[in-house]
Amino acid sequence: MDFSIVESIRKKRDGQAWSAAEIRAIIDGVTRQTLPDYQVSALLMAVYFQGMSPEELAVWTDAMRHSGVVLSHPQGRYRVVDKHSTGGVGDKISICLAPAVAACGVKVPMIAGRGLGHTGGTLDKLEAIAGYNIFIDRQAAAQQLEEIGLFIIGQTDDMAPADRRLYALRDVTGTVESIPLISSSIMSKKLAEGIDGLVLDVKVGTGAFMPTRERAALLAETLIGIGRAAGCAVTALLTDMNTPIGRTVGNALETREAIDVLRGEGPADTVALTVALGAEMLLLAGAATSLDEGTAKLQQVLSNGAALERFAQCVAMQGGDADVCEHPERLPAARSVVEITAERSGVVHAVSPRTVAMASMATGAGRQRAEDQIDPATGVVLHAVVGQSVATGDVLATLHHNGRGQGEAEALLRTAWRIDDAPVAPSPQIIDRLS
Amino acid sequence: MDFSIVESIRKKRDGQAWSAAEIRAIIDGVTRQTLPDYQVSALLMAVYFQGMSPEELAVWTDAMRHSGVVLSHPQGRYRVVDKHSTGGVGDKISICLAPAVAACGVKVPMIAGRGLGHTGGTLDKLEAIAGYNIFIDRQAAAQQLEEIGLFIIGQTDDMAPADRRLYALRDVTGTVESIPLISSSIMSKKLAEGIDGLVLDVKVGTGAFMPTRERAALLAETLIGIGRAAGCAVTALLTDMNTPIGRTVGNALETREAIDVLRGEGPADTVALTVALGAEMLLLAGAATSLDEGTAKLQQVLSNGAALERFAQCVAMQGGDADVCEHPERLPAARSVVEITAERSGVVHAVSPRTVAMASMATGAGRQRAEDQIDPATGVVLHAVVGQSVATGDVLATLHHNGRGQGEAEALLRTAWRIDDAPVAPSPQIIDRLS
Repeated sequence: MDFSIVESIRKKRDGQAWSAAEIRAIIDGVTRQTLPDYQVSALLMAVYFQGMSPEELAVWTDAMRHSGVVLSHPQGRYRVVDKHSTGGVGDKISICLAPAVAACGVKVPMIAGRGLGHTGGTLDKLEAIAGYNIFIDRQAAAQQLEEIGLFIIGQTDDMAPADRRLYALRDVTGTVESIPLISSSIMSKKLAEGIDGLVLDVKVGTGAFMPTRERAALLAETLIGIGRAAGCAVTALLTDMNTPIGRTVGNALETREAIDVLRGEGPADTVALTVALGAEMLLLAGAATSLDEGTAKLQQVLSNGAALERFAQCVAMQGGDADVCEHPERLPAARSVVEITAERSGVVHAVSPRTVAMASMATGAGRQRAEDQIDPATGVVLHAVVGQSVATGDVLATLHHNGRGQGEAEALLRTAWRIDDAPVAPSPQIIDRLS
Repeated sequence: MDFSIVESIRKKRDGQAWSAAEIRAIIDGVTRQTLPDYQVSALLMAVYFQGMSPEELAVWTDAMRHSGVVLSHPQGRYRVVDKHSTGGVGDKISICLAPAVAACGVKVPMIAGRGLGHTGGTLDKLEAIAGYNIFIDRQAAAQQLEEIGLFIIGQTDDMAPADRRLYALRDVTGTVESIPLISSSIMSKKLAEGIDGLVLDVKVGTGAFMPTRERAALLAETLIGIGRAAGCAVTALLTDMNTPIGRTVGNALETREAIDVLRGEGPADTVALTVALGAEMLLLAGAATSLDEGTAKLQQVLSNGAALERFAQCVAMQGGDADVCEHPERLPAARSVVEITAERSGVVHAVSPRTVAMASMATGAGRQRAEDQIDPATGVVLHAVVGQSVATGDVLATLHHNGRGQGEAEALLRTAWRIDDAPVAPSPQIIDRLS
């Protein structure tokens, strides 16, 4: 087509809509790198201010999705589904969820991400398992999905390359926080998995990228709209992210908690979130006719060892040490553990997820920059959570560290708990459901 | 300073003000090219949407001005002044204005520009004179200013280099049309001339960059504010650009008209605009105590040959053929002249400046791109202007061409005149005066 990028930038800047052909030319130019970065970044900033209509966004995301390889799967008994979380603190849910859903007969081709900033990444947590390979070849992945119903792998360079280039630019040009750009980034990658259904865990609160319910709901609605336009059924749960999920923050520590859940144990909130998201996945896949039925199936595979077995198979097929399922002590452990204790008695009113995350990052559990090396063993274990009564001197948390960042992490953790005399009402874990 | 460009982009994006140190760090990074283009272009788009406060703009412009060489001049009898036009069609005023003001004893260190798009450039018009050198060395320029009171030269690479880089990026990223960016670009270059006062000719109308009076007034006020903050007195005239200025559009043709004005002849509107702007310059320079006095002085130097003599000296000192002043037929002439005639009788209600400009460009008189070569000889001479009565077959214009673009130019010119039966009220040339 006869395409002028400057004209397209000006149109968006002036609030006019792009044509489908124009959008495809833009994404093609991004993918082939025929458009210079300085024009793409100006265009992204114009999108930041002017947004995109649902029609534009559907085409934009579709073009991004098809900028690289799109997986396809043989027709099975149930539809192929996945889950995506917008990112939380202590969010190890994927690791227990994917095997549990697979154990119910549903295929879950999960392509996960690494952690950046205050939120961890599923891939980093899995790599705490010795030998776990996040890059298996496509044929092996397809066979693994066929045999055991799941893989959890990293995104390869040939999937949604347009998103990779756009994300790298957004990160350095102040254009990350745009709902259409966030939504198209998420959905282009998820739709490239060749899924029929997607469950979204949209986090709301101080530990989330979307601090308010309104913004989170807008993001969820935008994601659902993109899915609908692409023929992919999407259900979104808005879930609370004002406190860390479960009891652990840090890679091996979180993997261990996920294994606990797969063994029918684990903290109640981690289990509840796994089951809630899993029931939605079973419903979307056609493997349950109601959420109640889905919940029952999931509780069964978590308690009878079927989910744990799937996870062990997944770890083994991806080259990892599957013995961690039976012997979680095989996971890397930090050399030192420091206790953080309560300076007063009372009831825990809040545990700041960002502060806990920053403490964990200080010990090397997270990345400030994409190229940072992480320490799989370090992090924080929470001993007192919201609603719990504590006495002066009780242990609030243990800091697991290898020397790095200890002082900073301890100082942060000492500010993370808010303890008061008044009783505290529990806040619901699931805030809303959109579909 | 501890400076994060991403943080600065986000601040502007979110409508927060930059600190002075932050602005200086940004312009320093632009000048030294330590900031990548993709970040600068995102920042420019954020400025497009969020603007800059007068305080920010004063620092931003000052930093741009001082990104390169700033001229200084010995204290003289009067203050040193210049004029800037926002760009019109047939705007040859600088060429007659600078010598006329210099002939009144005021120093005019004029750094002019080339034409781009539908507006011509003073440098291109002057280069129609054989040998005229727009790049004389700084010492020669200073001596010329001292001796004859004027130079008209091009911008060298060491003046306001930050503006050159910003403008090149704005041009390809849809961020030209921003009043703070336009204003700082103009004022950084003009203030680098080391002037004490500046008269602005802000064009309003269909042939101008600012089509409405409101936008033009906002631009003028912004320019005046920047000047005030820098200790430079600025007066702005808002002038009509709904019809070409004078009778010629095209380089040698316009230079010849400017020489006519310097000989005490020339079209009434060209003379009137020259005198109006010149009187403001004399007032700012302290060479006249009233506009009436300034007007009288200018009329005198235009009629007694003093202004023409200054121009001849300027041309000679810059290496040009000063004989054109006495023998304008020495200017390049096109090989062919075609007449455009009236298809009906009546009164000329309008002559579209953009259409005439496009016709002139089609013959090679202007540039679509900065690298285009121009033909100095071609262009359009207007024989019928607004308010004039014409009969069918009367010549409206002559097209001066060398073969290139003749058909397109003729077709355009045939649509440029609007002739009607009703009488037409003259519209004022000077719409407003701001200071």
